[in-house]
Amino acid sequence: MNEFESTARSLVDAGRELYALGMVPATSGNLSARLGDDEIAITVSGAHKGKLDTNQIMRVDLNGASLDGRRPSAETLLHTGIYHRYPEVGVVLHPHSVNATVLSRLCGDWLVLQDYEILKAFPGIETHACTVNIPVFDNDQEIARLAAKVDACLADLDRAAGYLIRGHGFYTWGESMNDALRHVEAFEFLFDCEMQIRGKRQ
Amino acid sequence: MNEFESTARSLVDAGRELYALGMVPATSGNLSARLGDDEIAITVSGAHKGKLDTNQIMRVDLNGASLDGRRPSAETLLHTGIYHRYPEVGVVLHPHSVNATVLSRLCGDWLVLQDYEILKAFPGIETHACTVNIPVFDNDQEIARLAAKVDACLADLDRAAGYLIRGHGFYTWGESMNDALRHVEAFEFLFDCEMQIRGKRQ
Amino acid sequence: MNEFESTARSLVDAGRELYALGMVPATSGNLSARLGDDEIAITVSGAHKGKLDTNQIMRVDLNGASLDGRRPSAETLLHTGIYHRYPEVGVVLHPHSVNATVLSRLCGDWLVLQDYEILKAFPGIETHACTVNIPVFDNDQEIARLAAKVDACLADLDRAAGYLIRGHGFYTWGESMNDALRHVEAFEFLFDCEMQIRGKRQ
Amino acid sequence: MNEFESTARSLVDAGRELYALGMVPATSGNLSARLGDDEIAITVSGAHKGKLDTNQIMRVDLNGASLDGRRPSAETLLHTGIYHRYPEVGVVLHPHSVNATVLSRLCGDWLVLQDYEILKAFPGIETHACTVNIPVFDNDQEIARLAAKVDACLADLDRAAGYLIRGHGFYTWGESMNDALRHVEAFEFLFDCEMQIRGKRQ
Repeated sequence: MNEFESTARSLVDAGRELYALGMVPATSGNLSARLGDDEIAITVSGAHKGKLDTNQIMRVDLNGASLDGRRPSAETLLHTGIYHRYPEVGVVLHPHSVNATVLSRLCGDWLVLQDYEILKAFPGIETHACTVNIPVFDNDQEIARLAAKVDACLADLDRAAGYLIRGHGFYTWGESMNDALRHVEAFEFLFDCEMQIRGKRQ
Repeated sequence: MNEFESTARSLVDAGRELYALGMVPATSGNLSARLGDDEIAITVSGAHKGKLDTNQIMRVDLNGASLDGRRPSAETLLHTGIYHRYPEVGVVLHPHSVNATVLSRLCGDWLVLQDYEILKAFPGIETHACTVNIPVFDNDQEIARLAAKVDACLADLDRAAGYLIRGHGFYTWGESMNDALRHVEAFEFLFDCEMQIRGKRQ
Repeated sequence: MNEFESTARSLVDAGRELYALGMVPATSGNLSARLGDDEIAITVSGAHKGKLDTNQIMRVDLNGASLDGRRPSAETLLHTGIYHRYPEVGVVLHPHSVNATVLSRLCGDWLVLQDYEILKAFPGIETHACTVNIPVFDNDQEIARLAAKVDACLADLDRAAGYLIRGHGFYTWGESMNDALRHVEAFEFLFDCEMQIRGKRQ
Repeated sequence: MNEFESTARSLVDAGRELYALGMVPATSGNLSARLGDDEIAITVSGAHKGKLDTNQIMRVDLNGASLDGRRPSAETLLHTGIYHRYPEVGVVLHPHSVNATVLSRLCGDWLVLQDYEILKAFPGIETHACTVNIPVFDNDQEIARLAAKVDACLADLDRAAGYLIRGHGFYTWGESMNDALRHVEAFEFLFDCEMQIRGKRQ
């Protein structure tokens, strides 16, 4: 198994895990991983993320151009933007959960997270006694425009583990697949907590 | 395996998937697929949809009459109505989820969906920035009467991917089983989102 | 496999199903089935209902007395009461779900169910357009006293498919295991719907 | 298989069960069991609790000092505190569920539980008609300080089956793994009930 094949296999496995958690329904979501310096592996457009085959994983360059003639996800530029900005990142995941979709519609431009022990799952956070601001972007079918807004925002943040798109889900990433999946679990847990609290306090 | 057998097998598999998602409890729900020009395959009356055997799939004509002496689902005319109206449709699914049951009791004659990225799972929708109106019909044990109301409503809609029956679940369809199941997942996701928002905003 | 063994096996299987649905947590709940005219098979006291072995199923007579020296569930008289009252009943199930526990604390002496298609899962109900009153009893560790109250109430009902015990779960039954499990699924679905509606309308 | 290996295996299995229930996401939570008089087996720092290998279980003494050179969970002193206080306890589990995290932020210094049948899952409780007070501690990254507060509180309680840490999850324990897991299930069920009631009554 060469590097592309083992990377494609890890994306297929991650898709199956995320689907079982209800986080990539109805062919939503997409997944990618870095391949060497100039390429990434990413899911093709329209695939069912819970039942991926490795031949539904394709190659694009860091500008999002197809390297094998197939059509990548419409949101490929949101993936390549992260690989450009963070050289250490090896995996980018975009789950599309109910909690992320609804919570992003209930809050403004930032989701503020405080006093959760699980915040320590994110890099550089050593205590629950901190404030983590997660950016929330308005959804936009013009992906290049949205990617530019995301990048401008991330440029101003010291460190970010992910962001929300309103009514659309979230993006998170990590050095390895294990790191990225840990961030998915931590975000989803936090979104669920925030949804539960909003149902009780209001 | 002939066409009937492979179609019956696809309905058995879909039933097991829907049951695992809690969408066809207590023998509720029913499933069908088109067979050639004049027939459909449909679940027999009273079967457990999560533990179907292919011999619980029967043939009816497009008027809902049994072609093999067995008794089809009481709601067969709601299936045949869709096959009459949409010649391209190959599969009709009727899940009976908690979200669809409750949401249909909380809203009026239309469920209005806006600004959800997942709306793009439905045919002809290219952006979240649109309004999709899903009809909600009062439940009726007189199925021919209900089918006529559904048909009159669908005749006025440019394009529809499904409808709700109050306190009873929803119907959706597609050209293939994959299309129909994608629509089930997208609707259920949207119903869940709408239920969550109603719990938080009111 | 003799009758006791096949009956015990069906109770073990039902326990595993109910546990997977979260309905018999922490050794709660109990399950029984009629054996001939004068005996029932029932789970022993304190067993984990999701990991039952057939040797955790025992025999008691219709007065709840152990026929094999082991100690049956403390709630055995609630089971035998149903077998006395309804000669056609072959299986009695007592799940202990969160929805049943909380809903029984939120309502008075009756849970009123109306306009749900799934009510047709219960015997003798042919339309959603009906009112089904489910009795809710205060919990009582004096099981003989509670069983007497239940029996007096059921004597006044034309037909009953189950009842709730406040903060404690519900009882339901059927001629066969399939019937009883269908009633479990229908009740749990209805309890879930009622919980969801209460969260939205208030 | 020696005692350490069989104990490590039981912790691996418990981790897989808790992960499937969503109670140890994103490498949160930790698990331990007593080994003889002076040692415990405990999960190493940072491991994924749903995919543990027995070589991710290590030995520490009852003061929390590593006996094999590896780094135990940061919260090891919360485990050893329980083994010191309760000589009969053989297993300590720390799940990190959404319900425990949110509920502990919604209540004050005590969670008061009353009139739940499932309270009988805890040792020494024979009736639902009782009041069980579960301590809730503020989260603290200074684990020795937090462990001292926990111990001072438990010293004043006649009997305790567990406690909450605000925004962080809960601790529970038992003589055997089965006892400890029964307490996990009973607590999680109760936390879920309390969350549901708060969403309906307010």
